[in-house]
Amino acid sequence: MTKIALGIDIGGTKIAAGLVTDTGQVLARGQTPTPARSGARQILATAVQLAKSLTGEHADASGPPVCVGIGSAGVIDPVTHLVASATDHLSGWVRADLGTAFRNEFSLPTTVHNDVHAHAVGEAFAGAGQGYKSVLMVAAGTGIGGAVIIDGLLDVGSHGAAGHLGHIPSAEAAGLACPCGKTGHVEAIGSGTGLHQLYGRLGGDRDVQDSRAVVARAASDPLARQAIATSAGALGRALGGIVNLIDPAAVIVSGGMINAGELWWDALDQGLRDSAMPILQNVPLLRASLGDDAAIIGAALQAFESLQRNTHA
Amino acid sequence: MTKIALGIDIGGTKIAAGLVTDTGQVLARGQTPTPARSGARQILATAVQLAKSLTGEHADASGPPVCVGIGSAGVIDPVTHLVASATDHLSGWVRADLGTAFRNEFSLPTTVHNDVHAHAVGEAFAGAGQGYKSVLMVAAGTGIGGAVIIDGLLDVGSHGAAGHLGHIPSAEAAGLACPCGKTGHVEAIGSGTGLHQLYGRLGGDRDVQDSRAVVARAASDPLARQAIATSAGALGRALGGIVNLIDPAAVIVSGGMINAGELWWDALDQGLRDSAMPILQNVPLLRASLGDDAAIIGAALQAFESLQRNTHA
Repeated sequence: MTKIALGIDIGGTKIAAGLVTDTGQVLARGQTPTPARSGARQILATAVQLAKSLTGEHADASGPPVCVGIGSAGVIDPVTHLVASATDHLSGWVRADLGTAFRNEFSLPTTVHNDVHAHAVGEAFAGAGQGYKSVLMVAAGTGIGGAVIIDGLLDVGSHGAAGHLGHIPSAEAAGLACPCGKTGHVEAIGSGTGLHQLYGRLGGDRDVQDSRAVVARAASDPLARQAIATSAGALGRALGGIVNLIDPAAVIVSGGMINAGELWWDALDQGLRDSAMPILQNVPLLRASLGDDAAIIGAALQAFESLQRNTHA
Repeated sequence: MTKIALGIDIGGTKIAAGLVTDTGQVLARGQTPTPARSGARQILATAVQLAKSLTGEHADASGPPVCVGIGSAGVIDPVTHLVASATDHLSGWVRADLGTAFRNEFSLPTTVHNDVHAHAVGEAFAGAGQGYKSVLMVAAGTGIGGAVIIDGLLDVGSHGAAGHLGHIPSAEAAGLACPCGKTGHVEAIGSGTGLHQLYGRLGGDRDVQDSRAVVARAASDPLARQAIATSAGALGRALGGIVNLIDPAAVIVSGGMINAGELWWDALDQGLRDSAMPILQNVPLLRASLGDDAAIIGAALQAFESLQRNTHA
């Protein structure tokens, strides 16, 4: 019988759960809104309840899961596996003990990772990155996140904070404030928020509310086109620089910005080629393929991987 | 008896060889000028001859080596282990087969790596990085090189080109030509060459010939101080950005610029802290400790590691 893991993805707006095979196939899935303002205890109870419902409903079809993999918003301490830091959006999330909450309920081996890390593992092994041993993933949405997978291993980082590729310097972001508290990072211009703010600085229509609206008016508004080209170009040059550092076999782009149209993609691609060294010019730039399933799949695959490592140890 | 590896470091100006223990201790060393313009065959014959002399002289004291590790200038293809690309300084070096040349002479398991990669492995495991599992090394000299070691494993890269951290974007380098053929990379301002050129652009004394001379006049020349602060600050901010991406346990600085004095170090350190996210502020910035031995030690350690992996496989 195929082995099944329970994959959990805890984000700021929704919690998703899935029953995932060891090849990354999702047999069943469910989701529920995150009670983000109710504190860690309530968020975890909601996640556990979702997982119980899902496993209960599908117990006959798939058999019981052998392990649990969690991907969660926030930096996960690589030693204690507690939440080390998180945005204020999830109240009381710092020091939350996700692993214990799920182990208490399911009595199964349980792993905890950052949600962007889980997302990247999903895409790398079961999505757009299949067949590539080393992958750089960038998640370009409201903000910019990412992950680095080298020779099949996720770089979690010494503090669990690896992959923050929005926070490398960018000439186009010089002097701009970054949400991390520093200045000059590419997130300040290359994210959706950065794109919207750039459009404003260029003198764009003040009624345009967000990056989606900037993208929507690209066909008719030269300032929108200029903002998109500059924003995506800056992100592309940052990616090209990271390619020079990491030499990945492929770069995967995920997040809301992948729907920003051809102008955005072309500028991103051109920026990457403008900055990547001649020997690395041909690195493939790929679109993520798993959509919202990526994090539950990646979380499940990390749980399988840990199970296998500990069994063989 | 302690196991010994033969460590070889082939650079543009000299070839070094050492007998190295599996803990990274150098029992004996030798070196000779590189016949850089004489072609790959002559360079390799010179390197093999140096290694033969060294092992012959010390055969009684240390016993025969069990493996050979080579670090060499140029990008080493991670599949074929041939030189994939190299500067013109070493004539005929592209496609040179270093491994075969040494295996033909010594009949020992032989590994080939890039010299900066070897240098980083030496510093990470036997030098300044001892005790840290993940290390970012920057080699700041005439140019800028580097290497990334994550969870004890060197990132060689898909093309053998990982670690080129001089080639990430820098606001201070915007528009400046980089030796790689692209523009805007931190090497164009943060390297020794970049520092010297910046001093010239600031209106510095035209008789000042190189970065060492810029550093030498810092006490008396405000433009030299300004150039040093800007150059090292830009490199520091690039390092801070890479820290955000990789989350290493330590950053090691090697290369000629580590002798550029307190002003340079302070600006480097400040730049790093200015760009690293709050959670990563305390990453140690360390001075390389092995000097010229680093590459022969690292090359030897890589050979030991490969030997062990293949023995246990």
